Amino acid sequence: MAQTLKGFRDFLPAQMAVRNHVIKTVKSVFESYGFAELQTPTLEYSDVLLGKYGPEAEKLMYLFKDHGGREVGLKYDLTVPLARVMANYPDLPKPFKRFAIQPVFRAENTQKGRYREITQCDFDTVGTVSPLADAEILAVISDALTALKFSDFTLRINSRQILFDLVIQAGISSAQSLTVLQTIDKLDKKSRAEVEAELAAKQLSPAQISRLFDLLKGAQPDSALTQIMDSAAKLGVTHLKFDPALVRGLDYYTGAIFETIVTSPRIGSVSGGGRYDHLISALGGPDLPAVGSTLGLDRICDVISENRLLPDLVLTSTGLLVTVFSPDLLSSSLALALDLRKSGLNVELYPDPDTRLDKQLKYASAKAVPYVAILGPAEVAAHQVTLKHLATGDQHTLPADQVPDFLHRLV
Amino acid sequence: MAQTLKGFRDFLPAQMAVRNHVIKTVKSVFESYGFAELQTPTLEYSDVLLGKYGPEAEKLMYLFKDHGGREVGLKYDLTVPLARVMANYPDLPKPFKRFAIQPVFRAENTQKGRYREITQCDFDTVGTVSPLADAEILAVISDALTALKFSDFTLRINSRQILFDLVIQAGISSAQSLTVLQTIDKLDKKSRAEVEAELAAKQLSPAQISRLFDLLKGAQPDSALTQIMDSAAKLGVTHLKFDPALVRGLDYYTGAIFETIVTSPRIGSVSGGGRYDHLISALGGPDLPAVGSTLGLDRICDVISENRLLPDLVLTSTGLLVTVFSPDLLSSSLALALDLRKSGLNVELYPDPDTRLDKQLKYASAKAVPYVAILGPAEVAAHQVTLKHLATGDQHTLPADQVPDFLHRLV
Repeated sequence: MAQTLKGFRDFLPAQMAVRNHVIKTVKSVFESYGFAELQTPTLEYSDVLLGKYGPEAEKLMYLFKDHGGREVGLKYDLTVPLARVMANYPDLPKPFKRFAIQPVFRAENTQKGRYREITQCDFDTVGTVSPLADAEILAVISDALTALKFSDFTLRINSRQILFDLVIQAGISSAQSLTVLQTIDKLDKKSRAEVEAELAAKQLSPAQISRLFDLLKGAQPDSALTQIMDSAAKLGVTHLKFDPALVRGLDYYTGAIFETIVTSPRIGSVSGGGRYDHLISALGGPDLPAVGSTLGLDRICDVISENRLLPDLVLTSTGLLVTVFSPDLLSSSLALALDLRKSGLNVELYPDPDTRLDKQLKYASAKAVPYVAILGPAEVAAHQVTLKHLATGDQHTLPADQVPDFLHRLV
Repeated sequence: MAQTLKGFRDFLPAQMAVRNHVIKTVKSVFESYGFAELQTPTLEYSDVLLGKYGPEAEKLMYLFKDHGGREVGLKYDLTVPLARVMANYPDLPKPFKRFAIQPVFRAENTQKGRYREITQCDFDTVGTVSPLADAEILAVISDALTALKFSDFTLRINSRQILFDLVIQAGISSAQSLTVLQTIDKLDKKSRAEVEAELAAKQLSPAQISRLFDLLKGAQPDSALTQIMDSAAKLGVTHLKFDPALVRGLDYYTGAIFETIVTSPRIGSVSGGGRYDHLISALGGPDLPAVGSTLGLDRICDVISENRLLPDLVLTSTGLLVTVFSPDLLSSSLALALDLRKSGLNVELYPDPDTRLDKQLKYASAKAVPYVAILGPAEVAAHQVTLKHLATGDQHTLPADQVPDFLHRLV
């Protein structure tokens, strides 16, 4: 039997527990701000996908012919489908605030540790230029990371407008501005001397370079950015930092740009985004302003798994295995399982009454179910249940009708 | 700008609200029985998909070559990937109880109202022959439909073993048994006379036909089925009915078979399944017994949408729009939104303070947000908020700090 294709992954229950925890957490933050979910098909006409992100991206797209001879392709990102939706449903109330958590497909080089099916997690407000929309995007990121229990993070913010103004003030031609900014973007990875050398190689004079660094040092938020930062603060964002050296790679941003770095646990960049007022139309949609961001879901899940940042009771959705002592005592185990489920607990009943008890306990350990309930002849006769915590071996025998409350106190 | 491919759908926020409600509800039932989620890739090697379900199914598969020249295909169902997972991870604790809610792809004839990307919702217990596992599958279906507020439904149950025994007792050769059963299966759609005529056309003698109907009429659950039905009753299943005329189309079932009919609202069959002790190995996995079922998620969502079976507050995840009266009063609206979110409510803040209030109210109506909060100069001066219910026009003005409690009582 074949394996999975390289770059594609199975998510077994233990990994799904982490993914579901993260997705549930971020979804509830999105919804708390009125972002609503949108899902689009896995397959689109190739025409929808092509001519949008350049030839390098197109080389990575999965394109083929369907049964009717139509040229089709697997989704490459979530922004192109958003542009198509804005074009197909012109009556959607605007601003349209949507989030989308769906797989996208890119035939990346897997030697670089990249996956070919990744889950993107985008949230965007389409149809308003108001700085409040930008502030809300920042507040969502801040609330999501806080809800995921990441306490040490910084939201870096800058504006494309400020950057372009600085370049002009430094006496650099606007034709050169994008390439100069791409070098400036490396300041967080390279030394100032290295960046200066790269700028010199791009034909900037020593005076221009020195002036550019002076301007960067003295840069201040403009009035649009100040409005965004003030509103974000009023929405509870405390980790916001103006950073005039923040550039962001993509060239479609038109206003505010932001990037979020988590320092503990050390994840690095988990979220980038900004305002892109002409991208929707460039992608084939109507000319609507927009601002949005994306959360690095796969990266966040990997870090939570690697650092075991979730308690056991979240990692397994099942808190208790009800064992079956022997076939003649099955009814008591069935009745307990029914009671516990009615009280809202997730309970697994060992399905084979002919299996020896020690094997049932081993099964619970293998599945990382923290507690087991034992109902032997003595317990059943006395209407009692023995609860055993597998990790410590601690046991409690208590009246059957007190078990739901006992377990609810633990969860 | 192109539309979606035929047979593929966008799910806009209002439709996603229904889908998310249904998925959340069934997931919580699956988890309450210890079923854990498994996700497998969208793409598999063609070898994994081919040679499993016959040439008719293979004509509907999306098969193509990837960038490395590998023959690949889109998932066709969730059982083949389950068989691959059981083969790839032999150390998974057994019984392995998994559910999976993922899209599958079939190039069906869309004129028949079929979709090409559908979400399947499977749950199965792999690795035990215990009747208790079968009983749990029935209990999950019953609990899921009850949780979805469908009160009128019947779980029909039968056994392939009973059916094969009846055919032999009626003096029909075992070579003919499957085709005879396929005709018997039509008894719920055709008259007895029509079914008899079809059996006669299949060369059964009048005596054989008459004997077969007598046997069907007098059939009783065998001991295996009785154990399943007894355990299901102890797990709270009250809608279970032995039906000796239930056959189910697929020929891989080896024991119990079941089908669930919802009569109000009139959905028809929403769930089929049964025991299939040799399918996992036939699909390329290890030889493990299994029992499982599937819920018709798309059908259930359609019926809930068509019959408006969800209350407004579930249909929109946002209960309240906080309006912004004017730019100078923005801070008060921001503060209220922050407070309400902290109290656990989903709140949308209108993002553009320059927009007139009546247009903000219109936006809330278009999005079906039930309540709006208005903070005009009088309210702000008195530390009050006016809440307006848009459908009725009812208004309440109350102290700002009482708004969270007031809204929590409504939700």
